[in-house]
Amino acid sequence: MVAKENLEKKTAKDIRNQIRLGKIRQPTSGMAKGAVQTNLVILPKEQAFDFLLFCQRNPKPCPLLEVTDVGNWEPKRIAPGADIRTDVPKYRIYKDGILEQEVDNLVSIWRDDFVVFLLGCSFTFENALLNAGIPVRHIEQGCNVPMYVTNIQCEPAGIFQGPMVVSMRPIKREKLVKAIQVTSRFPAVHGGPIHIGWPELIGIEDIGKPSFGDPVQIREGEIPVFWACGVTPQAVAMKAKPPLMITHAPGHMFITDLVDEDIASI
Amino acid sequence: MVAKENLEKKTAKDIRNQIRLGKIRQPTSGMAKGAVQTNLVILPKEQAFDFLLFCQRNPKPCPLLEVTDVGNWEPKRIAPGADIRTDVPKYRIYKDGILEQEVDNLVSIWRDDFVVFLLGCSFTFENALLNAGIPVRHIEQGCNVPMYVTNIQCEPAGIFQGPMVVSMRPIKREKLVKAIQVTSRFPAVHGGPIHIGWPELIGIEDIGKPSFGDPVQIREGEIPVFWACGVTPQAVAMKAKPPLMITHAPGHMFITDLVDEDIASI
Repeated sequence: MVAKENLEKKTAKDIRNQIRLGKIRQPTSGMAKGAVQTNLVILPKEQAFDFLLFCQRNPKPCPLLEVTDVGNWEPKRIAPGADIRTDVPKYRIYKDGILEQEVDNLVSIWRDDFVVFLLGCSFTFENALLNAGIPVRHIEQGCNVPMYVTNIQCEPAGIFQGPMVVSMRPIKREKLVKAIQVTSRFPAVHGGPIHIGWPELIGIEDIGKPSFGDPVQIREGEIPVFWACGVTPQAVAMKAKPPLMITHAPGHMFITDLVDEDIASI
Repeated sequence: MVAKENLEKKTAKDIRNQIRLGKIRQPTSGMAKGAVQTNLVILPKEQAFDFLLFCQRNPKPCPLLEVTDVGNWEPKRIAPGADIRTDVPKYRIYKDGILEQEVDNLVSIWRDDFVVFLLGCSFTFENALLNAGIPVRHIEQGCNVPMYVTNIQCEPAGIFQGPMVVSMRPIKREKLVKAIQVTSRFPAVHGGPIHIGWPELIGIEDIGKPSFGDPVQIREGEIPVFWACGVTPQAVAMKAKPPLMITHAPGHMFITDLVDEDIASI
């Protein structure tokens, strides 16, 4: 395993090349600092229209950064020269909604009818929070972000439907406005929060028991703030049980040539 | 023809009902003041994935406000109860890229494989300019906005490709920053300008001769400012010559229940 500090300074292209050569297989958090990382969903063309429509209707949990042409493995708009079959450290293959296996590359199973969806992930807006002097608890605690299934229904599209999954970060009361402002600048990576304060209003019964990830401490004077989470489209897709779906393994993201400011609104 | 002042004060739903009953057939500019109006493109499912992908890749000229389910004529997210077959004052039917006829409704020609695309139009950000004390020349002159085909190529998707069409509004030098700020708040209706100042840099040879619409006066101390234009997707679709495409007739827009602030970013 390559030392984390060295990977932070490498370019996105360098990291992708090392992944392609099999030299990197670990989670990508912190690699190629400043580069935008994305979630990956691959579906056959048969399901691609419905999924594209689902993302169009639910841009907060499903912010699309690129969708490739049918059968094309190069995300040429956000990572020219990349090969989506080899440049992600670990992939998951789902059949009929059930995780079948994890693989290191997709070369042998690639099909001409595959469509690649790359969706914004929260690393970018967590950088924005940190840059604004707002600490991120799960980073401090060195654990995974807590995620919750809510009672907010996504807008359905074809076979795809289900509740929105949110991530939670406790924010000090005096930093709430700033936290909303800085994350709202990044609509392509979930944008501003979808809810502040009362977990029960969005169907979360026990803030101490997240549906996914790890619980984090909420300290005196802090308010739980909820952002739409990129786990949503995967959860919805699994529920729809498409015959075949491929995703990245959790934390093992695709690293693009975009930098955070490239996707900032004003 | 109903007097314009009366239509300004009506709700979007009232206007749609009057259109449905055949009482309104004129251009919709100024009707149901504050309501968001949209461009209309209808394509059979066969071409819908490519067109949806084209819009995803070119959000400035093609800002999607709603895409209906296949065969569904109700844009239930932005205009519940509306019927897209009857609630637009005038439609155009294109076959193989050629305008075949204009019709008053789509009831008899509706098909179960039609997908409806509703795209933001510039009326909303022109309101924002006016509210910010920035006059809009073609409104002052009572003519159509000047539009130009540029040398900026859209990102192609499947059969859809072609240059971006822009609209131009002359802005006083001291109002330039404000004009950029207020329109950037509305990414769902083309957002901030794509170019300022030098028409030749985007392939416009003669600012006095627009490709569509009418020329407007550019006065001393004013700079031509260019925004992506909703004519782009129609121009591109016509060039792609799909077997069948239906649009609104120019100026005869679909009026939604959204108000301008509903689609503002922060």
